[in-house]
Amino acid sequence: MSPKSVVITGANRGIGLGLVQEFVKDKNILHIIATVRDVEKATDLKAINDPHVHVLPLIVTCDKSIDSFVTKVEEIVGSDGLNLLVNNAGIAVKYLTKTKPNRSMIAEQLDVNTTSVVILTQKLLPLLTRAASKVSGDQLSVSRAAVITISSGLGSITENTTGSAVFDSLAYRMSKAAVNMFGRTLAIDLQDDHILVVNFCPGWVQTDMGGQEAMLTVEQSTSELVSSFNKLDNSHNGRYFQRNLTPFQF
Amino acid sequence: MSPKSVVITGANRGIGLGLVQEFVKDKNILHIIATVRDVEKATDLKAINDPHVHVLPLIVTCDKSIDSFVTKVEEIVGSDGLNLLVNNAGIAVKYLTKTKPNRSMIAEQLDVNTTSVVILTQKLLPLLTRAASKVSGDQLSVSRAAVITISSGLGSITENTTGSAVFDSLAYRMSKAAVNMFGRTLAIDLQDDHILVVNFCPGWVQTDMGGQEAMLTVEQSTSELVSSFNKLDNSHNGRYFQRNLTPFQF
Repeated sequence: MSPKSVVITGANRGIGLGLVQEFVKDKNILHIIATVRDVEKATDLKAINDPHVHVLPLIVTCDKSIDSFVTKVEEIVGSDGLNLLVNNAGIAVKYLTKTKPNRSMIAEQLDVNTTSVVILTQKLLPLLTRAASKVSGDQLSVSRAAVITISSGLGSITENTTGSAVFDSLAYRMSKAAVNMFGRTLAIDLQDDHILVVNFCPGWVQTDMGGQEAMLTVEQSTSELVSSFNKLDNSHNGRYFQRNLTPFQF
Repeated sequence: MSPKSVVITGANRGIGLGLVQEFVKDKNILHIIATVRDVEKATDLKAINDPHVHVLPLIVTCDKSIDSFVTKVEEIVGSDGLNLLVNNAGIAVKYLTKTKPNRSMIAEQLDVNTTSVVILTQKLLPLLTRAASKVSGDQLSVSRAAVITISSGLGSITENTTGSAVFDSLAYRMSKAAVNMFGRTLAIDLQDDHILVVNFCPGWVQTDMGGQEAMLTVEQSTSELVSSFNKLDNSHNGRYFQRNLTPFQF
């Protein structure tokens, strides 16, 4: 079953935009809340022009922006609460081990991809909890309440055999390992609230981040992702998967 | 074989101080460079009063402090280079999922335990590379050149079954997962430079961080750690162990 309401961050382009396009196909979803840093510039997103899509401004690194956003989400979803948060917004700061040390570049990478995910999720927890409490029993699903984070295969420590040379990925890898830890921890912490938490790798996708030589189109990745989201249950809680639900090792 | 020179950060108390006390027993070590934020206050460390121990100021979160420190390390180790860096300095910021969101607390936790480890290691790489180049062949060891980071079992994502409730550990867990990713990535990146990289969990130790109800005395933990350091070879590179070399899953 589908969620009635979903928030997708970083929806102006790439995988975030593709996820909105997939969710629009599902007529059971009442509210698709798509966030962008600058609503003016989100021309592709606004072109979707579907009555279920709400385009809202959100700067995930800014607490005040998050607070205004959460207020607007509450106005939209009301007493039903929020079913699904998809933490998709992220950046890839290029950082090699053998490069000039730069503390602020690492700090920015961790702030956007890790800390902002924690803060936004914490601030949306009351609305997720509200949605979860509408259903009885222990069953977990995205139609009840869920936090899904778009992580990356580069966040797998165990499967890291290529170091920082791949995509100059030292800082990016650290941010995704940390957000994988967040997902795992959150899943345990929210078990009694019946909120599902899962992290995904979308694959190597043709986006501004992935480059045009990537293996997958946005549509190939996002159609598989959304199909997987709708299959999630208690057995997936606190885990980390490829887009087709093949498990990743942390 | 033992290293001829070793840097230990955060040596004013706890595991850092205990590591210095263990290294002092090994008369093959010429230079034990122990760092503290405030040399004035490091009374226990200065009381060791061994001619091989150099007590130096270092604030790991301050790039200028790191630069002055690296200059002094170079003066001490000279053309031999530095054999072993033990990244031990760390803090545990208490942070629960169900607490008031606080971006700066998470940022501080990640800055001290993760980003500072990256920056200090990068800045000491020329001295580690110098030591590694003195030996021919592909053999890795702490007597050649190594970066050892004191991580934590709480940094294991796979083995996390207790969430943030244990030690209010959400931010701490994320910082240690990220520094585990750093160790793994660094090991791959430095393989051709013949620098060994390993992360350790010291166990639950009676320190200011671990509390007095902890299972191990500092001496029990650090004697096992140093014994393990001296056994490390190519088979351990890029991995994560308990103090007695039992492997941890990431």
